[in-house]
Order: sequence, then C-alpha cells, then structure tokens
Amino acid sequence: MKVFKSPIKDIQFVTQQVFDIDAHYKTIPQGAEATPEMVAAISQECAKFSENVLFPLNQSGDAEGCSFKDGQVTTPAGFKEAYQQWVDNGWQGLSHPEEYGGQGLPLSLGVIKSEIVGTANWSFGMYPGLSLGAMNTLIEHGTEEQKRGYLSKLVEGSWTGTMCLTESNCGSDLGQMKSKAVPSDDGSYRITGSKIFISSGEHDLAENIVHIVLARIEGETAGTKGISLFIVPKILPNDDLSLGEANQVSCGSIEHKMGINGSATCTMNFDGSKGFLLGEKNKGVNAMFTFMNTARIGTAIQGIGAAELAFQNSLAYAKERRSMRTLGGPVEPQQAADSIIHHPDVRRMLLKQKAIAGAGRAMLYDAAMIADKMMAATDDKEREAVDSELGFITPILKGFFTEMGIEAANEGMQVFGGHGYIKEWGMEQISRDVRIATLYEGTTGIQGLDLLGRKVILDKFKQYGAVNKRILNLYKRSLASPHRWQMMKFIGPLMGYQLRWQRMLLSILLAARKDRDAVGAATHDFLMFSGYLMSAYYWALMALTAFEKLAQKKSDSADLGDDFYQSKIQTAEFYYARMLPRAKSHSEIVRAKLSSLTAMAEKDFCLE
Amino acid sequence: MKVFKSPIKDIQFVTQQVFDIDAHYKTIPQGAEATPEMVAAISQECAKFSENVLFPLNQSGDAEGCSFKDGQVTTPAGFKEAYQQWVDNGWQGLSHPEEYGGQGLPLSLGVIKSEIVGTANWSFGMYPGLSLGAMNTLIEHGTEEQKRGYLSKLVEGSWTGTMCLTESNCGSDLGQMKSKAVPSDDGSYRITGSKIFISSGEHDLAENIVHIVLARIEGETAGTKGISLFIVPKILPNDDLSLGEANQVSCGSIEHKMGINGSATCTMNFDGSKGFLLGEKNKGVNAMFTFMNTARIGTAIQGIGAAELAFQNSLAYAKERRSMRTLGGPVEPQQAADSIIHHPDVRRMLLKQKAIAGAGRAMLYDAAMIADKMMAATDDKEREAVDSELGFITPILKGFFTEMGIEAANEGMQVFGGHGYIKEWGMEQISRDVRIATLYEGTTGIQGLDLLGRKVILDKFKQYGAVNKRILNLYKRSLASPHRWQMMKFIGPLMGYQLRWQRMLLSILLAARKDRDAVGAATHDFLMFSGYLMSAYYWALMALTAFEKLAQKKSDSADLGDDFYQSKIQTAEFYYARMLPRAKSHSEIVRAKLSSLTAMAEKDFCLE
Repeated sequence: MKVFKSPIKDIQFVTQQVFDIDAHYKTIPQGAEATPEMVAAISQECAKFSENVLFPLNQSGDAEGCSFKDGQVTTPAGFKEAYQQWVDNGWQGLSHPEEYGGQGLPLSLGVIKSEIVGTANWSFGMYPGLSLGAMNTLIEHGTEEQKRGYLSKLVEGSWTGTMCLTESNCGSDLGQMKSKAVPSDDGSYRITGSKIFISSGEHDLAENIVHIVLARIEGETAGTKGISLFIVPKILPNDDLSLGEANQVSCGSIEHKMGINGSATCTMNFDGSKGFLLGEKNKGVNAMFTFMNTARIGTAIQGIGAAELAFQNSLAYAKERRSMRTLGGPVEPQQAADSIIHHPDVRRMLLKQKAIAGAGRAMLYDAAMIADKMMAATDDKEREAVDSELGFITPILKGFFTEMGIEAANEGMQVFGGHGYIKEWGMEQISRDVRIATLYEGTTGIQGLDLLGRKVILDKFKQYGAVNKRILNLYKRSLASPHRWQMMKFIGPLMGYQLRWQRMLLSILLAARKDRDAVGAATHDFLMFSGYLMSAYYWALMALTAFEKLAQKKSDSADLGDDFYQSKIQTAEFYYARMLPRAKSHSEIVRAKLSSLTAMAEKDFCLE
Repeated sequence: MKVFKSPIKDIQFVTQQVFDIDAHYKTIPQGAEATPEMVAAISQECAKFSENVLFPLNQSGDAEGCSFKDGQVTTPAGFKEAYQQWVDNGWQGLSHPEEYGGQGLPLSLGVIKSEIVGTANWSFGMYPGLSLGAMNTLIEHGTEEQKRGYLSKLVEGSWTGTMCLTESNCGSDLGQMKSKAVPSDDGSYRITGSKIFISSGEHDLAENIVHIVLARIEGETAGTKGISLFIVPKILPNDDLSLGEANQVSCGSIEHKMGINGSATCTMNFDGSKGFLLGEKNKGVNAMFTFMNTARIGTAIQGIGAAELAFQNSLAYAKERRSMRTLGGPVEPQQAADSIIHHPDVRRMLLKQKAIAGAGRAMLYDAAMIADKMMAATDDKEREAVDSELGFITPILKGFFTEMGIEAANEGMQVFGGHGYIKEWGMEQISRDVRIATLYEGTTGIQGLDLLGRKVILDKFKQYGAVNKRILNLYKRSLASPHRWQMMKFIGPLMGYQLRWQRMLLSILLAARKDRDAVGAATHDFLMFSGYLMSAYYWALMALTAFEKLAQKKSDSADLGDDFYQSKIQTAEFYYARMLPRAKSHSEIVRAKLSSLTAMAEKDFCLE
C-alpha cells in the first residue's frame, strides 16, 4: 500500500450533487450547523489526519499486530498516539448530542468520517467504531444517569466501548447464549460468562472500557426472550466518574486472525462482574437490534473502503508497470513495453473496483441520510417508518458490498501479478483485512435471510414496493430530463432488471407455498440480485447527475470538472455492460429445483 | 484444518470408471507395469504418507514459515524429515525413466501423487514440484551427460531443482529480461543477473540445488529470441557427481508472502555463476514452453486441492455446528438447534466446493492422460498433435480451476462464520495459500490470452473444433444409452451452452475485425465460459458413468457403492442448476461494446 488519497471529490459528488445533502441538512435539527463550509472543513481535516497519521500505520499495524501478555493487550506502535490525537481533536463525538459533550452534527457526517478513516486504516477504526455501538445503545436505552456517566466518557473518547454478544457456541443464534446475570441487593447484577470475538475488548488506548453485555438473568425464560443487556465497565467508576476499583472482567486471550491484526479480538471473561441493567429486562435482544442497522452500515464501509484502497493502489501500479503490447498494437512504442493500464483485461479489473466503490458509496450515503432522519424522528411512528426504510437497504448494503469488497480487493491484488502476493506491496493485506466483513455483524447468509425473510416477506412487501417505486421514479425523471436519450442505455436495462426482480420474488413465493425451505434456498441469490439492481439504480442516478452537471454553466464553484463527470458516466457504462449481466444468473438460479440443494443425504456429502 | 482424507474413491471413480485408465495404460509403454493393483498400492501408500506425515505439517509449516539468515534458508520444523522420507521411498522419480533411476511409471500416476500430496500440504509439495519442472526440462533438452548427471540426482531426490525465469521488471514478458551469459573458454558460461520469486531457490532439504536459468548470451538479439537456458548448480559437481566447489550463486532474501509460507520464495543472485547451456542457443523460451503445459497442470492441482481440503473441513464443521432452525421447521427437534448442514444456504456453499473439486479432478486426469500420450509419442508429428490437444485444455484447467479454487476456499471459510477468520481453524490458511495460484505460472489474464489468442485463433480453431466434437459425442453417447431420459437434464443444457460458446467466439471474431483489442477485452469472459462449459461436460460424463454403474450388477469388486454414484449425480444436478447459469453472464458480457473498457482516458481513472 503506497497510496491513499481520501476520495473527497467522490464523496462531494454523491452527497452534494447526487443527493443534495445541504438541502437535507436544513430539514433536521442536527443539520443546523452542518453548513457546506463546515462539512468541507471537517472532511478536509479528517482527510489530513487519515492520510498523514492513520494510513502510515496501516501496514505497520498489520505486521506488528496486537500482543497479549498477562491479561494486557498492547496495540501496534503508533496506535496509542494516533488515538490520543483522535480524542484531542474531538472526532469521537462528532455526531453525538451536545448535552453529553458531542458536537451534535448529523450521523451522515459521521459516516463521511468513518469512510475516510476506515479506508485509511480499518484496524484502527475498529476501536472508535466499537465505541459508537456502545454509545448508540446508551443513547437509546440508557437512563439519564447512565448517559451523563458512561456516555459522556465515551463521547469524549477517554473511555471506549464494546458489544459483547457472541459466545463460543453461538453467534447469530443468540437464544443459545449461556452467560448469566444474578441480581445483587444494590440493584446491580453479577455477570458470569465468557464472550468471544470481542473487538476492542482489551487494549492500551484508553483508561477504561465500557462493555455492553448480553446475558440471561437467572431464572428467566430460555431463548432470545430471556436475554437482557448490561453495562459492565472494566473499571468501576466513582460517582464523579474518576476511576474506582477494577471490576471482575478479564481478557483471556486474543485471537490470531487472517487480518485486521491491529484490532484486538478478545475473549472476555466475566466472573461475577458487576453489571448494570441497560434498558428493559428481557428486552436485550430487541435493544441490540435497534442499532443493528447502523452497525451493519458501519461494516459495509469496510467493503467499500477496501474497494477504494485496492483501486487506488492497483491503479498506481497499472500506470507504472510495463508488460507486453496490447493486441491492438504498441500504445507507447518508445518504451520497452506498454504500461499495463492499456491492456483491456487490466482495465476490466480496475473499472470493476471503481464501479464497486462508487456504487457502494452512493448506497452508503443514501442509507446515512435515512439514518439522519431516524435520529431526527420526533415520534415512534415516524421513527418506525424511517427505520423500516433503512432496514430494507441495510442487508443489501452490508451483504452485497462486503462480498463485492472482497472481490474488488482480490482484483486489486490480481493487477499486481505475483507482486500482489508479497506482503511488502500491501495488496494482500487489503484482501485479508476485508475478508472478515462478510463474517461479522451477521454473515452474508444472515443478511440474505434478513432481507428476503424479514424485510421483504414479513414486511408484506411494503418496503420492497417502495424501492420499486423509487426505481420507477428515476425512470420517469430521466425520461422527463433533457438527457433522456443518453439515459436510455441505463434506464432501459434498469427497468428490465427490475421486472426480473419482481418475477424472481414471485417464483420464490410460489415455491415457498410448497416448501418453506425454498425461501432459505433463495436468500443468497435474491440478496446478490438486489445488490446488482440497487447498484444499477445508483449508477443510473449518478450518470443522470453527471449529464446534468456537464450541461450546466461552469460558474458553479462546487463544479468537479467535466473529466470527472465524464468518468462517472463511463464507469456507469462499464457497470451496465460488464457487471450487471451477472445478476441474471442469480435470477435464473432461483428458479432451479429445490431438490438440487436438498436431495443429498447428509452422509452422502462425503463418503468416509 | 482438522481433517484430511485422501480422496481415493473420487480419484478411482474418475480415472478407472469415467476414463478407464487401465485400458489406457495398456496403450503406452510406461503403463506396462501400472496394473490396477500397482496403482491402488501406490495411491494407498501416498495417501498414508500424506495423511500421516505431510498433513500434520501443513498448519505448523504455515505458522512457522521459512526463515532466512546469512544466505541460508531454514524450512519449517518437520519438513526436512518428511522430505527425507520422500526421497527414501522413491516418490520423486515415480514417473521418470528407469534409465535415470526412476520407476518409469506413467505421468498420470505422478499426477495422482501430486494431487494427494498437494492437497495435504501444498507448501511442502512445492519443493519436489519445482524439481519436476527442472527434471522435465532436462529430459527434453539435456545432453546424455546432463541426464546421467543432474537428472539422475534430481530423480533420486537428493538434489532439487528450480526454474529461474522472473526478474523484478518482467514476469510473463520475458523479452525484457536482463540476465546475461558470457561464454567461457571451457564451453561453459558465466551467468550474471538477479531472479525473483524463485520457489525452492534455497532451502535445507537437499545437498544441492540445480537451477534452470533463463539468460541472454552477450551480444544476442533483444526480445525473447535471444534467450537461452542454462543449468546453474548451487554446488558444482565433480565428475563422479560428488559435491565440488560452491558456485557463485546466492540467495539474497526470501519473500514474506500472504501464504504458502512453508515454501521458500527466493531472490537468487547469479554473480558470474558457472552455467552450462541446456538445449539450443537462443531457444530458451521455446524450451521453457515445452513444459509449460505440465507445469500449469501442476498449478491447477492447487486450485482443486484447495477446493477439496476446504470442502472436507467445512463439511465436518457443518455437521457439528448447530445454529437456528431451517425455515422448513426443526430437523433435529431434540437438539437446541439444527446442525447447519440442514440450512439450504450452507448446503449451497458445501455443494459448490464439492462440484468444483469434482469437475476439476475430472479435467485434471483427462489432461494427465493426454500428457501420458505425449510422453509416449514416438515421433514429432504425433507429439505435436497430442501437445496441441493438451495445449488447448491447459489454460482452461489452470485459469478456471485456480479461480474456482479461490472461490471454493472462500466458501469453505464462510461456512465457519467468524471462526473461519481465526487461524486456529486453518480455513483462512487454505484461502491464503491458494491465492497465489491465479498469479504464478501465468496469471489468469495470461491464461485467457493463451486460450483465446493462441489456442483458439492462432490454432485456426482446430482444437476448438475437436473439443466441440467431443462434447457432441457425449451427447450422442448419452442418447444411445439406456439412461437417455435421465441424461436429458444434463445433455440438453450442455448443447445449449455449447451453442453459446460458438456464438460467443463468432461475435469476438467479428468485433476483432474492427479492433484487435476486442480479443484482449474478451479473454477473461471467454476463459471463464470455457471453464463452466468444460465442467458441465465433465459433470455430464460423470453422471452418465454413475447411471451406468448404478444399473450394473453389483458383483464388480471395484464398485464404489450406490450412495456414492447417487451423490455424483446429485452433485451434477447441483452444478447444472446452480453454477452453470453463471456462464451466461460471461457470454453476454462478451457482446458488450469495447468502448465500455477502452473509452476512459488513463488520467480519468482517478482524478488527483
């Protein structure tokens, strides 16, 4: 990894020109201070910090990794100092309420921050990222006292947070959880159990760690309905929030992983640890799910960031490395060989990465703006409506763009030939790091089940219908625009794929009437098709915006340049011509007989 | 990685029942001693050695890796002892001529050995594997003296070999090579240059290393036509092959790689090293290409082996791990949750791996039997004919099955959820190890170019036509068989996809008349389509064989059991229903406008 430039122009294009975030900010209270100048200044600052401080620690952090000794975790050299700068500059509380010490800016501005930071150094970003999860849970479910206490420290960044869900025998199936909570006389609880895969569970960046722990209160019902949420601090705070005595919380080990080596993944042992109920008794799983959407949006960023970082670095290499001549004849005859960016197959790999990063970014900020509205919602009904809108696109964003992030990183490596396999170049690290993204925060299988089962079928097609309508509106808007002829090559196919999406769902529903496993068999392909379709939607939308900008007078100070807009249209063309057709195989596979998955007897998979 | 069972039954099925290798062995001189009993005994011995000695070193070898100090390379603990057993048991010379100390058995039997060894421990297998490259080059191009000398030591295994092609600025584009050879008075040469990515370039397994080095004799023409091949031993042998003085050959460093950490990847510095011309002057590149096919078949094994190993381990996990209930209702109601093998989406991931390994194995032994014929060819014309048959399927085998091996390993990890990312389980290692396979021995891009450019177009469609005919013959054979009705679901689609293959080629040729870059733009999709089609061919062939075996009387001692045959048919059904449709997107993408790849100006890829 030699290069990282914050994709500020691409972010500007999407947020300001495609979605008009400035107008959006005028509609939400958090947006009051988020003037275009403020957004630009924050993005620039974040870019500077990420390029100059975080990115240089990305490769060294991977090589060194975290170390574990006597229950203590040491993060890689430089992480502690970088985190201190993070705290000093107030980055942690950017989009959290001013009354708890935050800057009160919109959530979507926090997403810009997360994208830039996460692309520069994902492992570093995991520490403040996990705090966000704890912070959001506290905001939604904490008592005023808990907010004044734990939340304000988390907002400050002097403490960090974790989410403790997984146990060795259960991940997504939380009902199998074994951790127990026993009530004490003082109203607190004693928590006992062992949690695994706890990111940032222990480290040397902050003076205290606030664990948000799922456990079952003794005697409560089995399954997910008997699980509650607890605040379990590493060090028990005194009333004035100074540090008191150590709690019975210990890190048993850290995992040795394929990647994200700078991020400590801990086994956390709670041994009669003092914990405080967070939210309602037995509603712990529901409380977790409140913020599952934003957590999953956060994970999607990893896929998009990996695509961007792989793209930038493989592009730099493709311009520099010379090999052979294109079949069309020498492009640079004065050189010993053409630079490989001239080979069509190398362009294919580069454009794929660019198309993935671009579509993912568009969907990301679309989701972020919906999340803004959720934060601004003034009553439960409004909140629910926006949450269900967000809930529909979240599994697509997380499921599809983490899968595509892996593919993009893989293509990035491939551009380097054998050099891609060598650690020094850093490309293999991008591949290793992003590989976790389809596994945590719910595997791709879980996202597919969530989308098709919960968000389409159980939702009775309400959000599904809304998205269909949205696509149709883009079609109509394109037809009504002066660019209708140029847009035909996008919106024509877009309509065709939308029709396939509808037929696909119909065929799943028909098959499910005979056997409900037909839904489980279709989740993956439905998810992937939805991802390709939504990407087609965003690329058409970006192309339309680009055509409009190209046609505008160039007096606009926010103009990003004709070449920039042209390259957006060209990327859209690439996407429609050379990526979108893959979606068809998914719609065809959905029509396959269920027996092609279910017929084989368990013992016949392998006969030994 | 907890499990490895040599897939002996699957190999038996393919070699004996699908291809009737016993009859084939009767037609080649090397086959004289390869009786079914001999083949079975060798396979069993190899399985035992691989399961008990090599597989246990796979994960430890990755964790420890090779180390480099003062020019010396130390292989991971246990490799040295395992290699000694390898030599003692005569594995190295299994399929090499008896006159040079080998066992004179068919090359395809050596492929069985390579598959089993390579699946158990790819990194270990690289050491003897690289020797094979050197041995084959010596057999074909060496003088009698060179064969009696170097070759016999390599056959014995007491010396190992390397292939030194790549330099820092050139991989596939060998014409840019800078290494020089200066003639000495005694007929030898002084070789000077630096080679990178030299697998097994230096290690502690054997007393000497024979480097086969490409270099340009001083004053010879630029480009590939001025390059010759040299034997450069690490230690110069005396006439009686005892070790003489050290040559000026040194290992400058070893690479730190994403995977195959037990295999030493060296920078080799030749500093006026004494070398001996191998084959004709200036024909070095041609000489290399003689054995490119077999080397690439060897690399394909890595993809197939990774699919098999990932499959076996994820299958074991899927049977054991319990999570949630299938949508169809509890399958194991007495348990807290169903084992995940009952979830359709997990079955999809398992069957994909199984289908990839199975199709790859079929193509592998098909290729190996053609290679047998090449070895047995008695005149140049016959050899050329067989070589061109082999040359057509080699880029598909290497290009497609290394890509699919990566995908399979990725699915294997995915079955494990978060645990797949943890080193302890070994799944991420399979992913990291196999990732090199699409990069070395010619990237996938190079395979695509070789297939479409050289093996289809420059070959004037001769082999392309032959393969089409072969597919048609399977269709006819199926129609003529009593299983014609059961075979319809395979051969019907097979014919349809074949037709697409023909149309696809036609559209490429038409586009290329306008712009030759249309060929370069189509190579990837043509290669992938060809891989899917060939896999469909092999799965149909395996299904037909399975139907025939199911219908046979069960007196046959070689019968593998009805459940086994049934599972082959079910895997074929899975492949046709849920993998083959992907091929269509490749044929559609080929029809896309060339401009969707070529229009973007170099500077507009990224605007900074």
